[in-house]
Amino acid sequence: MPNRIVVQKYGGSSVANVERLENVAERICSYSLQGDKVLVIVSAMGDTTDELISLARQINPNPSDREMDMLVSTGEQISSSLLALAIHKRSLEAISFTGSQVGIITDTDHAKAKIITIETKRIKKELNSGKIVIVAGYQGVSINKEITTLGRGGSDLSAVALAVALKADICEIFTDVEGIFTTDPRLVAKAKKIDYITFDEMLELAARGAQVMQTRAVEVAKKYNIPLHVRSSFSKKEGTIIMEKTPNNIEDPVVRGVTLTESEAKITICQVPDFPGFASMVFNKMTQGNVNVDMIVQNMSHDKTTDLSFTVSKDSLSKAVKLSENIAREIKAGEVLFDENIAKVSVVGVGMRSHSGVAAKCFKALADNKINIGMISTSEISISCVVKKNDGKKALRVLHKTFELEKTK
Amino acid sequence: MPNRIVVQKYGGSSVANVERLENVAERICSYSLQGDKVLVIVSAMGDTTDELISLARQINPNPSDREMDMLVSTGEQISSSLLALAIHKRSLEAISFTGSQVGIITDTDHAKAKIITIETKRIKKELNSGKIVIVAGYQGVSINKEITTLGRGGSDLSAVALAVALKADICEIFTDVEGIFTTDPRLVAKAKKIDYITFDEMLELAARGAQVMQTRAVEVAKKYNIPLHVRSSFSKKEGTIIMEKTPNNIEDPVVRGVTLTESEAKITICQVPDFPGFASMVFNKMTQGNVNVDMIVQNMSHDKTTDLSFTVSKDSLSKAVKLSENIAREIKAGEVLFDENIAKVSVVGVGMRSHSGVAAKCFKALADNKINIGMISTSEISISCVVKKNDGKKALRVLHKTFELEKTK
Repeated sequence: MPNRIVVQKYGGSSVANVERLENVAERICSYSLQGDKVLVIVSAMGDTTDELISLARQINPNPSDREMDMLVSTGEQISSSLLALAIHKRSLEAISFTGSQVGIITDTDHAKAKIITIETKRIKKELNSGKIVIVAGYQGVSINKEITTLGRGGSDLSAVALAVALKADICEIFTDVEGIFTTDPRLVAKAKKIDYITFDEMLELAARGAQVMQTRAVEVAKKYNIPLHVRSSFSKKEGTIIMEKTPNNIEDPVVRGVTLTESEAKITICQVPDFPGFASMVFNKMTQGNVNVDMIVQNMSHDKTTDLSFTVSKDSLSKAVKLSENIAREIKAGEVLFDENIAKVSVVGVGMRSHSGVAAKCFKALADNKINIGMISTSEISISCVVKKNDGKKALRVLHKTFELEKTK
Repeated sequence: MPNRIVVQKYGGSSVANVERLENVAERICSYSLQGDKVLVIVSAMGDTTDELISLARQINPNPSDREMDMLVSTGEQISSSLLALAIHKRSLEAISFTGSQVGIITDTDHAKAKIITIETKRIKKELNSGKIVIVAGYQGVSINKEITTLGRGGSDLSAVALAVALKADICEIFTDVEGIFTTDPRLVAKAKKIDYITFDEMLELAARGAQVMQTRAVEVAKKYNIPLHVRSSFSKKEGTIIMEKTPNNIEDPVVRGVTLTESEAKITICQVPDFPGFASMVFNKMTQGNVNVDMIVQNMSHDKTTDLSFTVSKDSLSKAVKLSENIAREIKAGEVLFDENIAKVSVVGVGMRSHSGVAAKCFKALADNKINIGMISTSEISISCVVKKNDGKKALRVLHKTFELEKTK
């Protein structure tokens, strides 16, 4: 395969120190020496970003997003230039760029900017002249010529967007784990690495708590149908390919993975007068207050009132409770309850589309193990159950076993 | 003085930690609240630049200047954004910029770029809207759109060049000392702070070892006649004003200051056949080899040969000796000697122009104190003597006393 365009992204743990950075340089050079045109996107070294944020908060607990972007974007600029130097030592040509220099043009929404377009002229020129091109991840430049960042995990998005813009042959996401697993291996010893997974499954897993890749990056990869290869920067092993249709599609497993998240809390507004548009009113208020709502369950009405439950991130619980109480008062509902001692387990797989009975099997397995389900919500390819926090890990193991994920190949 | 434009530069030690940075913010705000339009140029915090350089050298002992500029320019970007946040906390508006963002346009000579022009449009817009503008010092952007740096001490140059471009009313250089002294106070307890000094004297002092301000910055200030106020960021005291003609010009002291430098070494090429153009040949070779030559002394010819002595920085001694030996072989001169155990003491003052006898007084004072002089060189406003390294500090004290610098007001 002569002159493939290979896009590689290396996460912060992959370049956390000089030794790791040298290993990454070594790997990049091996691709270049094979004849590949290599474009590298790199995150800040180790905890650099968090350290910069903490320094800023010491000075100003409520820092402006515009200045934070000026500050934290330096982390990737540092790792990019150091990586170029490490490649130079290996006698290959390399050049590093900031997001601004290569023209990753974003909107003006600091700290969570959206990419509008990418000017590929300079990158192409350097790649065609035989250089390895390194781009600082996570950052761009706004239409107002301000430095912007793309939000947490934004380097994944930089990589995918650049792969799209350059029509890359491969987009590899190097990280500190071997790929996507059927569940978190720290919680379930029998968790297995998955060889192939669809974009939709990956998005569901990410939304349900798997933290390997940034969700927006997967969405963009899906939109432009760019297969991603998530793999370890510490080994030569193949990782997980994320793609539109996995090659073993005909006999797709019903369930691809299970996840656990303990970061949510549940709120219930009791005895809500059941008038049309009430739910939308509640969730509009939450959106206005920047509270993200995840699961929503509304029970059937009794006596013209209903109970409305939903989950929010624990970080925004106090805000969400306050908003809920205001609404409850306004519409003469009952009291507002909340519960932080919850966990959410989810079962994800595109095979569910064609297999009925997954939900039933899931509920039965939990019941057989005396695990009470507090809330249920389903999508086309996932089922989520809220259980007591103490039951979370057990529920995860039960579901992993029930769907025979330890046999994943 | 309503709406003065005040340019302030804060050095690395002035913003070395959060506490100092907050103090700097406090001072800046006090100017702004008086009605001044304040443009701040800031260096990297403390030893940041050296730390980044050392990290780079761990990875590549011979790093490219272009990538080093990408790397080290982050230091000033960090301190600039943090300073903006510290000002925001004090409820004033501030905005930070990289050199590239405000359009400090330089040539393409990485690591020691020269400023070609400065686009003031964006700065003026922000100043006029009432914001305190903070610009990362030491950096610019080349005509090729690459990040460049201006060489050691380059933040001074950024400040002076911006003051010129904005036609500032004041340019203050904040540092960790109280101003310019008659000599190094660490070496001579009776050293006195100088209230006023001319550009020419400052340039001579800097060239002879005084390290308070970057020489190029003083040259630019002289060229555009922008008075500089060098002062401490740790006190409210007035520092030293550097200007074209000091206010007490009529009774200018003959000698303004004395300096000592131990960073040079002496090379002698013996028995040089005395043909025209020989000296220029030697120093051309040195320039080609990037060796800066300081003092040059050629003795009178005996028997059609001469001895040529000159001093170079110790850093480049081995290179300079090698070059000298090549030349000596080529032109059939004698041996090449070198001596690292030297010190250079210099006496500087514009008053020398109108006062004869300064050199004689200087040599007599050293002789009376049994200090041998190895080389002498003079300019219109300075006299430098090379002495044995062991005699250096003593010579400095003798000269400080001889010219009564302890009585400086």
